[in-house]
Amino acid sequence: MHLERAMLGDLARGAAFLGSGGGGDPYYSRLLAEAALDGHGIPLLPLDTLADDALVVPCGWIGAPTVSVEKLPSGKEAIASLRRLEQLFERPIDAVMPIEIGGGNGLAPLIAAAEMGVPVVDADGMGRAFPESQMAIFNIRGLSACPSVLTAACGSLTVIETGDNLKHERIARALAVALGGIAHMVEYPLTGAQAKANAIPGSVSSAIAAGAAIRTARARGEDPFAALYSALRATGLYPHAGELFDGKIVDLERETRDGFSIGKVIVDGFGGEGRMEIVFQNENLLATLDGRVCAMVPDLITVMDRETAETITTERLKYGQRVKVVAAAAPAMLREEGALNFVGPAAFGLDMEFAPVETLNDWEEA
Amino acid sequence: MHLERAMLGDLARGAAFLGSGGGGDPYYSRLLAEAALDGHGIPLLPLDTLADDALVVPCGWIGAPTVSVEKLPSGKEAIASLRRLEQLFERPIDAVMPIEIGGGNGLAPLIAAAEMGVPVVDADGMGRAFPESQMAIFNIRGLSACPSVLTAACGSLTVIETGDNLKHERIARALAVALGGIAHMVEYPLTGAQAKANAIPGSVSSAIAAGAAIRTARARGEDPFAALYSALRATGLYPHAGELFDGKIVDLERETRDGFSIGKVIVDGFGGEGRMEIVFQNENLLATLDGRVCAMVPDLITVMDRETAETITTERLKYGQRVKVVAAAAPAMLREEGALNFVGPAAFGLDMEFAPVETLNDWEEA
Repeated sequence: MHLERAMLGDLARGAAFLGSGGGGDPYYSRLLAEAALDGHGIPLLPLDTLADDALVVPCGWIGAPTVSVEKLPSGKEAIASLRRLEQLFERPIDAVMPIEIGGGNGLAPLIAAAEMGVPVVDADGMGRAFPESQMAIFNIRGLSACPSVLTAACGSLTVIETGDNLKHERIARALAVALGGIAHMVEYPLTGAQAKANAIPGSVSSAIAAGAAIRTARARGEDPFAALYSALRATGLYPHAGELFDGKIVDLERETRDGFSIGKVIVDGFGGEGRMEIVFQNENLLATLDGRVCAMVPDLITVMDRETAETITTERLKYGQRVKVVAAAAPAMLREEGALNFVGPAAFGLDMEFAPVETLNDWEEA
Repeated sequence: MHLERAMLGDLARGAAFLGSGGGGDPYYSRLLAEAALDGHGIPLLPLDTLADDALVVPCGWIGAPTVSVEKLPSGKEAIASLRRLEQLFERPIDAVMPIEIGGGNGLAPLIAAAEMGVPVVDADGMGRAFPESQMAIFNIRGLSACPSVLTAACGSLTVIETGDNLKHERIARALAVALGGIAHMVEYPLTGAQAKANAIPGSVSSAIAAGAAIRTARARGEDPFAALYSALRATGLYPHAGELFDGKIVDLERETRDGFSIGKVIVDGFGGEGRMEIVFQNENLLATLDGRVCAMVPDLITVMDRETAETITTERLKYGQRVKVVAAAAPAMLREEGALNFVGPAAFGLDMEFAPVETLNDWEEA
């Protein structure tokens, strides 16, 4: 498969959904990627075709998505980081991938890939978006985040070297805050063999399929939500998907704290039918309907415009928006017992055991 | 001159005085240096003997001195940073120097020098201690802080690369806070030619002379303060020195904020004669007596035990201590007009023009 300029709209739309409210707004990343891909495409490499000794580098932005809306990137951050990493490894990079497919980060590696002439791998490190770096499957599977390179729009660059991935996240977060709230980071540099054994496969093409389904259904006057659910199930990666709630945003608490967007949103059902509360830390973490739990991390919870099925990221939520709250089962790799310690509800301070969205909502038949 | 284990007490005592209340408590640095120099000394190289193409690296700790009292270093931080810098430059380091002679940082490079077998240069970057990295003479003279390497006690290491020295300070400060409040940093790597043209010469041997004068006078039953003033004047680097006030600490405000120790201390004169207020940010910045300004940055202001003439750093100040407040003229390089923009009172938010301590106190005859 070849990533062409014309596919970026679908990728952005699908990545926004998979962002579960986070991962950064895809708008600027899409504009930058469109400029980078003007006239030529980039190979999208299936994960299993990587050579074992390839050097594969996950890329993405770290910081509060609220900042990304106001502070524009220079567009040179990713390539500066990757070139520095090539110096550290004393060899060229063979491929890049999104550290997380969700939100703007799903498109982040495309710009550097186009400029450096390397392919993007059809895989990522989260299968969605998560607020912290150590929630990547690569940390869950015991791989090191370092050497990692963080570059800010001003050109300031830092190389991080630590054996402790949680400390790496703390260092990188402090740097992002010091550098204006957001920075580009390359982390968890992988051999091809490590990528094949641990990355979440097919997530880039899944995002494109999800985005295309919404676009096509709208063009045909069909229900874009039904098309999205069907496309997600067809990927195999997100085997269950459906609507949790339909209503209007009546309350919103949101603050930017310690480099995160933190808060909750309240949605009232049309005709006074129930009230859904969604708690978020960059990403939506937990949806409850009149106190009953409907979905929780690592399953995906996304607030979407109820007419267009466009995702509303947490930093774009506003009072009065008419929305559907949509959920999808997380990739199976994130639901393994070892993974839930890192990305399950307890990892976010929520005092509950993980329960799958398809069980909580009787979607088992899907 | 050769730095021997037996001289470390004098160096620590003199560096504490030159720290102007800051630079970190010299106690642990002295213990570490004594262990490192056990059995063999290190050459103390006069600044003007450096080869033009030598690689000379200033070293020191960054963070709140209050933290340094409680959080012990591993003792391996400096050498890890220096070895990483050697990789970056692809050549061995020829010599190290203190980034600031004041406080524990005056001894910081000795440990690495002993282990790596390189000399310490008899010079530093501040001629005293200052709270922020960009207050070094090397920044004042337009040299770059980067590449710079910061290492924490846990072994986490970061390489900082930015063309903006103020941003370098912000990045390094954020890292120090994220890594527990304190970290070791190498910065402003210099050629021998740059060091000779810009470093503050003779400050290490001046610290040793000041410390020795206090020790010797005490042993002879003479006035250690008179001996200190005389030794400082004899260095040529600190041409004026004397007592500002003699009294008891009756009030102290001190907090650790944004990686700094910030506050003020009030000293009442014995027999109710006047009240001195000293404002500090890691270092003592301004001394006023009943509202009259007696000394200000970059001149040195140090609070000392009135019996022993041992320096009391800002993090060791306590209610009830009987003290002498001592001041000394800063090295001339820090009083140049270009330098005062970086290290004069306005750089610390004090709304006043710089006036020399010898003018303010009629020490002109000295």
